Amino acid sequence: MRIDILSLFPDMFKATMGESMVGHAQENGFIDINVTDFRQYTTDKHNHVDDAPFGGGAGMLLQAQPIFDAMDAVQKQAKEAHYEPGRVILMDPAGRRFDQAYAKELAQEEHLTFICGHYEGYDERIRHLVTDEASLGDYVLTGGELAAMVMIDATVRFVPGVLGNQASPMGDSFSNGLLEYPQYTRPADFRGMKVPEVLTSGNHQKIKEWRMRESLKRTLERRPDLLKTAPLNREQQIMLQDLKLDMEEKDDEDN
Amino acid sequence: MRIDILSLFPDMFKATMGESMVGHAQENGFIDINVTDFRQYTTDKHNHVDDAPFGGGAGMLLQAQPIFDAMDAVQKQAKEAHYEPGRVILMDPAGRRFDQAYAKELAQEEHLTFICGHYEGYDERIRHLVTDEASLGDYVLTGGELAAMVMIDATVRFVPGVLGNQASPMGDSFSNGLLEYPQYTRPADFRGMKVPEVLTSGNHQKIKEWRMRESLKRTLERRPDLLKTAPLNREQQIMLQDLKLDMEEKDDEDN
Repeated sequence: MRIDILSLFPDMFKATMGESMVGHAQENGFIDINVTDFRQYTTDKHNHVDDAPFGGGAGMLLQAQPIFDAMDAVQKQAKEAHYEPGRVILMDPAGRRFDQAYAKELAQEEHLTFICGHYEGYDERIRHLVTDEASLGDYVLTGGELAAMVMIDATVRFVPGVLGNQASPMGDSFSNGLLEYPQYTRPADFRGMKVPEVLTSGNHQKIKEWRMRESLKRTLERRPDLLKTAPLNREQQIMLQDLKLDMEEKDDEDN
Repeated sequence: MRIDILSLFPDMFKATMGESMVGHAQENGFIDINVTDFRQYTTDKHNHVDDAPFGGGAGMLLQAQPIFDAMDAVQKQAKEAHYEPGRVILMDPAGRRFDQAYAKELAQEEHLTFICGHYEGYDERIRHLVTDEASLGDYVLTGGELAAMVMIDATVRFVPGVLGNQASPMGDSFSNGLLEYPQYTRPADFRGMKVPEVLTSGNHQKIKEWRMRESLKRTLERRPDLLKTAPLNREQQIMLQDLKLDMEEKDDEDN
């Protein structure tokens, strides 16, 4: 997969995307990340890429020209490297909410381009270039860089081969529609806090049941909305009914 | 505000948090970011901070010991610098969803500590250290670093004085409960795409009305859920009714 990023802060990506999983994915040739500083494409003699908004108001807006010209260059490079024109993603609070399903979808693509806005906003005409407007959530960031890094990290996990252990992404929260069960590692007793006995019992069937039950319990308590769409098997459905009865009894006792 | 970060990848923060708005906020003394590499606190002779899960399963878990000891050290440093013990935030998919209101709330604090997990997960006992479990959204990241950076960026914007122009954070999407109106900057005609005439008219009353209407229209079309809680004045309520009638008429024409 080729990933192009248009940004005024290419150094942010060097350090961040060079570490950990995304860094390994690059070293091992699974992904090829190219960051283009679109300031290089401005035709402004002072190298400015922003200007005041028409109609007045506070703050500066990113201009269309540097982004359009940088995009032309990037698409030409990608074409020369035999990539089909892929999806072009702009971070926008009004965009499609990024989630695990969206990440899996992007992981199928051969070429992704992220446009990182900055300043107070960007010229509306930049939207003509994009196939996707995406939002991380209902909050405002200074620039699109961090948002692009988050989307790349979550997406690259699903590119086949990137995570050494292919079992891992499927055990994550959300991948089976539920929150993850509690996990413990050594020591079994840390500052008086002990690991649940079942986990050191060696009884694999009991451990599996305990984990399934804890996963359902945590989801029921903290994210019951996920249960509406989680694909539960017969065993899980029975367990969930049982958990609901437990919770109701507990509520009755509390009142 | 003092921000402590516990992470295995301190270099990720140097580049990313040194740039742009968060970098300026540090230079100007509004915030003081300290990154602690908690690997320095492991008592393991091979410097490992992770181990296999009790009960079996794929992947490695972050151990409690290095985090507890690093946290003891950080809290001691913060106390010596006369900060009260503040909120301690762990990124977790089951946590409270991060949003603009959460960012404003954190911006009121004097001391924040972010614990960045890594590997497949972390020992459940680490939760005993935290005041907040937070989630960016329904997706899984390799580590807590990017998520912490996103929360810090969104939060620091609300620390008084950080954004030079105090009008700006209030004009952002969500700050008034609505999505932002379209914005344009020079040139007025770019590759045949023209700026709406009203914005170059010089009529400030008309510009204000157009922007309010476009903001309501975009919210109605793309995030109608926000309208349930947005505090609308009388003028905005009338405008919204009018927009809804327009949309219904358009629907009728389409059918």
